[in-house]
Amino acid sequence: MATLFKDVLILDGAMEKAVRGHILVSKGRIASILDADQTPPTADKIVSGHGRMAVIPGFVNAHTHAAMTLVRGLGEEAPLMEWLQKKVWPVEARLTADHIYWGTLSAMLEMLAGGTTCFADMYFEMERVAEAAFSAGMRAALCRGITADPNDPGKAGRSLQNNLELAERWHGREGLITVQLGPHAPYTVPLNDMKKITEAAIDRGLGIHFHFLETEWELSYLRDELKATPESYLKDTGLINVPYAVLAHAVWLDPRLADTMSLSNITLVHNPCSNLKLGSGVMPLNDWLERDAADGSASVVRVALGTDGASSNNRLDMWEEMRTAALLHKGVNRDPLRVTALEALRMATYEGARAFGFAQKGMIREGWMADLVLVDLDQPHYIGADEENLAAYIVYAGSSADVRGTMVNGKWLYRRGDYPTLDREEILQKAREARAAITK
Amino acid sequence: MATLFKDVLILDGAMEKAVRGHILVSKGRIASILDADQTPPTADKIVSGHGRMAVIPGFVNAHTHAAMTLVRGLGEEAPLMEWLQKKVWPVEARLTADHIYWGTLSAMLEMLAGGTTCFADMYFEMERVAEAAFSAGMRAALCRGITADPNDPGKAGRSLQNNLELAERWHGREGLITVQLGPHAPYTVPLNDMKKITEAAIDRGLGIHFHFLETEWELSYLRDELKATPESYLKDTGLINVPYAVLAHAVWLDPRLADTMSLSNITLVHNPCSNLKLGSGVMPLNDWLERDAADGSASVVRVALGTDGASSNNRLDMWEEMRTAALLHKGVNRDPLRVTALEALRMATYEGARAFGFAQKGMIREGWMADLVLVDLDQPHYIGADEENLAAYIVYAGSSADVRGTMVNGKWLYRRGDYPTLDREEILQKAREARAAITK
Repeated sequence: MATLFKDVLILDGAMEKAVRGHILVSKGRIASILDADQTPPTADKIVSGHGRMAVIPGFVNAHTHAAMTLVRGLGEEAPLMEWLQKKVWPVEARLTADHIYWGTLSAMLEMLAGGTTCFADMYFEMERVAEAAFSAGMRAALCRGITADPNDPGKAGRSLQNNLELAERWHGREGLITVQLGPHAPYTVPLNDMKKITEAAIDRGLGIHFHFLETEWELSYLRDELKATPESYLKDTGLINVPYAVLAHAVWLDPRLADTMSLSNITLVHNPCSNLKLGSGVMPLNDWLERDAADGSASVVRVALGTDGASSNNRLDMWEEMRTAALLHKGVNRDPLRVTALEALRMATYEGARAFGFAQKGMIREGWMADLVLVDLDQPHYIGADEENLAAYIVYAGSSADVRGTMVNGKWLYRRGDYPTLDREEILQKAREARAAITK
Repeated sequence: MATLFKDVLILDGAMEKAVRGHILVSKGRIASILDADQTPPTADKIVSGHGRMAVIPGFVNAHTHAAMTLVRGLGEEAPLMEWLQKKVWPVEARLTADHIYWGTLSAMLEMLAGGTTCFADMYFEMERVAEAAFSAGMRAALCRGITADPNDPGKAGRSLQNNLELAERWHGREGLITVQLGPHAPYTVPLNDMKKITEAAIDRGLGIHFHFLETEWELSYLRDELKATPESYLKDTGLINVPYAVLAHAVWLDPRLADTMSLSNITLVHNPCSNLKLGSGVMPLNDWLERDAADGSASVVRVALGTDGASSNNRLDMWEEMRTAALLHKGVNRDPLRVTALEALRMATYEGARAFGFAQKGMIREGWMADLVLVDLDQPHYIGADEENLAAYIVYAGSSADVRGTMVNGKWLYRRGDYPTLDREEILQKAREARAAITK
């Protein structure tokens, strides 16, 4: 079945300007892109934009814990450790595999309605997360969060085994799912376990998804407990030798690190809203981006965008992350030229897809996967939007409320309030029951 | 005609917790609020919430320039003065009264869809702005932006006269419109003109709406050009003697000022998104709020929230301002306890209404004006929301997309995509024509 987007504005993070034209989607891919003055081909389904719809690439939420939708709103406005220890962890401990399944599906409803086509998830009971995403046709990069426990010396090893089995069964499945290994953080995984994990990653050709330097306290933990610097840690754990490593947060990673070592296998994930809400600080995003620009190559340091879990954000909304990333760094650095709309858009789409091993995904190019978002420009806040300035309108004036459709592999997963592959009412009901069960 | 909100969660910025119950609206006011277990009265119109709808007070956008919707997106990501001088001012100079009328109506569509029931506007051709708001039934606080021009010595005086005529005709009209005097900023209105304006305000019993210390440069302007400190400026201009003064931005106003002088007639308007986008900096909001708390009285320093104009934000969305205010100060101060959801909600509603002289408005109380917003909680991101935590869900997880209805004086101005008192298609068409006319 082919779908034609007729007379739309087309934009992705690689384009300086939007173009007006038509997109033909067939067999899950972008079959052709035509200029506005070319005659559009016929198709089974036609979406007529009348010049007042935009098509942009699907968002990639490059760091989340989807099923944490079930613990959203528990213990707000509390100090971090009190919040985790008293409010989140005791409740999380009651989560069953079924809860996580429904909590993930609930997160998917939310993400799809906002144009997210792919999410990178670190949690547990990941078989069920894979099942939820795969059966709905949503793209996902999955890892099992691995932690050690001094009272249970075999725990990290079993979790790694579990993560490897997940990879065995799901990695690469129909191009929808990739699997990474998921060591949680430097302070929850001892050095010897980290080394085993990076060795396994190298051995199997897998990537790593890891929390790194979210809080300043972690810097002192590295220094005092591990006698390490960020540089020595990345080297000694083997993280710089794995096929690729995605480091979530990196609020306290000093960009000057790139002067002394190659970070070519590393992607950082900026989670601006979560970092603000938890009081973790502001990542020096612009220093990383400028480093790219100065070098002239796009591969020096890569940065993607993510929401983090719903309990520390509390939205799973990539429009919010783009807007916050684009505004925040201008404000705190007092420079309106920092972090352009186009940079924010690229971080929210292509950079996330690339980071997690999805090829031909995240830009609107002929032959690439048709993960697309239909945006309604026929609204007051888009008056004045045109080819020249569409990225700025999307990032600064737009919001997830503008999404009229979200497509993965050429198939609608969300269209004007409906979810063709998901039972919204059942999911809401089951997620409510799960929430009630874990909080009672 | 009476409207009954049946089985809804009710919340405003004065409540620690939401309550479950019913609201009867009659003759433009909140006639009664009943507990959930009381039998709701009959009414012509019944909105059944089934426990999955919330009613919150209408938002008050306490500082904007509504018709700047027409210049949104012009010259993004440019240094401030270059942006103003090359992109905004030449285009603004072409605006006619008709353009401003339609640009304001377009802004109203946007604000009403997001739950804003009242806006405080500083611009020119304000007769037409008053006409737009009044005829649609939207509440507005209006002032004529007054600036001086060295090449036209009579300009400030004529603008003041114009502003006073606006007040004469519109101030207090049916409780929908209040008028303030609108000197633009310390650097555009010389001291002698400022004094004339504050004298006129005292003479007529009017408030002042003023830009104050948006950028750090203004501090040096005060020091070097006016030989003034913020304290001496507020005293010497007479701003502390007018009935009330609303100071927009105040990014660079030092909260220690409250130690040495009474600011009891002053409200500050925090515009976090605009201040970030223009690189102006981060207002020390928490220091102002803590001062309130320490004093124990709520009247020491008042802070409301605003969007600023659409060209420097670029949304007119009070949910974004609440969320950004609540997240930003936690992040930059690295303290997750700063600026609670409830504080953000109160700043976005009651504090704005009070600041601009609207009585019995901005909270949900019996006898108060029925400026209400209906919020749909039957969505994945509200799972877990209840009486205890609703404010946190609204501020951290909610967005303007959740608004299902916006009511002013008990009358729907927005309801599920429709605008009963406005012709959406005509407004969009006229606003597009205005945009084309000023940018061609």
